Amino acid sequence: MENINTWGSWLRHALELSATVAFALSGVMAAARGRLDAVGVLVVAFVAAFGGGTLRDLLLDQRPFFWVRHVEYVWGILALGTAAMLFMRQRHFEPTERVMQIPDALGLGLFAAVGVDVASRAGMPALVCVLMGIVTGVFGGVLRDIVCNEIPSAFRDHRPYAVCAFAGGWVYLGLSALGAPEWVALVSTVTLTAGLRLLALWRDWRLPLWQVGHD
Amino acid sequence: MENINTWGSWLRHALELSATVAFALSGVMAAARGRLDAVGVLVVAFVAAFGGGTLRDLLLDQRPFFWVRHVEYVWGILALGTAAMLFMRQRHFEPTERVMQIPDALGLGLFAAVGVDVASRAGMPALVCVLMGIVTGVFGGVLRDIVCNEIPSAFRDHRPYAVCAFAGGWVYLGLSALGAPEWVALVSTVTLTAGLRLLALWRDWRLPLWQVGHD
Amino acid sequence: MENINTWGSWLRHALELSATVAFALSGVMAAARGRLDAVGVLVVAFVAAFGGGTLRDLLLDQRPFFWVRHVEYVWGILALGTAAMLFMRQRHFEPTERVMQIPDALGLGLFAAVGVDVASRAGMPALVCVLMGIVTGVFGGVLRDIVCNEIPSAFRDHRPYAVCAFAGGWVYLGLSALGAPEWVALVSTVTLTAGLRLLALWRDWRLPLWQVGHD
Repeated sequence: MENINTWGSWLRHALELSATVAFALSGVMAAARGRLDAVGVLVVAFVAAFGGGTLRDLLLDQRPFFWVRHVEYVWGILALGTAAMLFMRQRHFEPTERVMQIPDALGLGLFAAVGVDVASRAGMPALVCVLMGIVTGVFGGVLRDIVCNEIPSAFRDHRPYAVCAFAGGWVYLGLSALGAPEWVALVSTVTLTAGLRLLALWRDWRLPLWQVGHD
Repeated sequence: MENINTWGSWLRHALELSATVAFALSGVMAAARGRLDAVGVLVVAFVAAFGGGTLRDLLLDQRPFFWVRHVEYVWGILALGTAAMLFMRQRHFEPTERVMQIPDALGLGLFAAVGVDVASRAGMPALVCVLMGIVTGVFGGVLRDIVCNEIPSAFRDHRPYAVCAFAGGWVYLGLSALGAPEWVALVSTVTLTAGLRLLALWRDWRLPLWQVGHD
Repeated sequence: MENINTWGSWLRHALELSATVAFALSGVMAAARGRLDAVGVLVVAFVAAFGGGTLRDLLLDQRPFFWVRHVEYVWGILALGTAAMLFMRQRHFEPTERVMQIPDALGLGLFAAVGVDVASRAGMPALVCVLMGIVTGVFGGVLRDIVCNEIPSAFRDHRPYAVCAFAGGWVYLGLSALGAPEWVALVSTVTLTAGLRLLALWRDWRLPLWQVGHD
């Protein structure tokens, strides 16, 4: 039993590390597209990486924040952002929207799983747990886009994004209610959410169009 | 006495329900104007409806939020937003700024009254109570406009809006200090705030122009 | 000893007052450039003056906020904003970016010192203390620019700004660790941060350029 708990804890830590790196890189790229300066790049990387989880913890009134408990992550983001700037400068590498979609999809799945888990431990009702998964997975990117003065791409590009986290969240709650071990619920949620997102991008699925005058 | 308390509680619940619907619809319309996708419409409807009250509760450090205590409201917003999208698609109904002003005025009055009431119960000083009424009534719309990447219309259109909530808030505090029953203070505040706002729109009142080079 | 404590307390109060006025004026000028109306000017002045400290206190979960403890400051901001509008109208005074830089630099130094101090008393790790200094000093302006629907100038203009607060924050922590009296740490931080910022503007220092395609 203890092995599984240790494994679950290790897995969750690995999930948070990967998701944080993925989102920080999406922040670097968004800041580069917005022509922000070096400080702006680091701040937007930080906001993209920790914004969703921090907003979730603010709403759930939980402290300390992840980045206060794990200050080494903040140093990591600063190092990663600096390295990314040097690399992008040397290679004349222009980040494209396409390149951003892969780390984004992984981060979405990873953060949504962690977010539902945290809200569920805090005793929130089911729908609020799923919303907190969406907040954790999506609002880092939303805050990133707001700082870069753009309409959040999650709300504009007519491709399933938050919807994938919504589906994943219910799967997590369902598996937990059925008594599945924590790591099974986590892995399933991550796989389903990131898989749905990548499938949606690959097959070019669209959200139902509804707007008048939209063509 | 108990009847009046029950009536006051019922009235407040009815106020919150009407204001929530009004603001959610203003969110749907703002998102439609900004050409957001279906997910964006639902998120902006949620932000417009619950953003002001949630920001107030964050600032006052009060939990649980309204939408955590009343999860049925979140389901309601999702249903309302979906219904509004279907309706707008079928009727080829293009939402205009004019149509948005009516639910906005009602929501402003209703939320300002509730906000002053909540801050007053939390023992805030008078000016902070009035500001919390403004936060509750105005910042749902402000957050809505920020997500839609627009300058908040409440701060830009030179028409009295937050000012009406400011006036209404002092009336609430004054009536309470005079010992008026809660429902009298609530009804008066709502009537005055929404009435002032609608009168200002009807008579085309303007805030004092002050800008250099403004013409 | 007591004299020094009183002096330290008086100094900190004076610092907060000056910084608040400086930032509120930067808010008035930003709102004027954005062509906001009178209510927008007052709100943006408030956000610029209290936004950074309020965000810090939200993150550190500290209540009551400065402006709840000192309601007279809120009245002061309302009076100051109104006076500034009347003055700018009479004198046909068009606020320039250059004029905004001086109060901004002072406010940055003053708020960063106070922010590191507050986080340090709350027992935060060193890097988080420095970040809270940056949040206090920089995010009032960031929120101001977000409300005015602009990319935050702190992240865009390639001139050292948050970097000065970063340096100042470490100086504060270092002096405190060496056992320097509080007022020495405060004065040194303010002097270094504001001095660096003004020197950077005067000598036209630039952050390292890194962007591809930037010329």
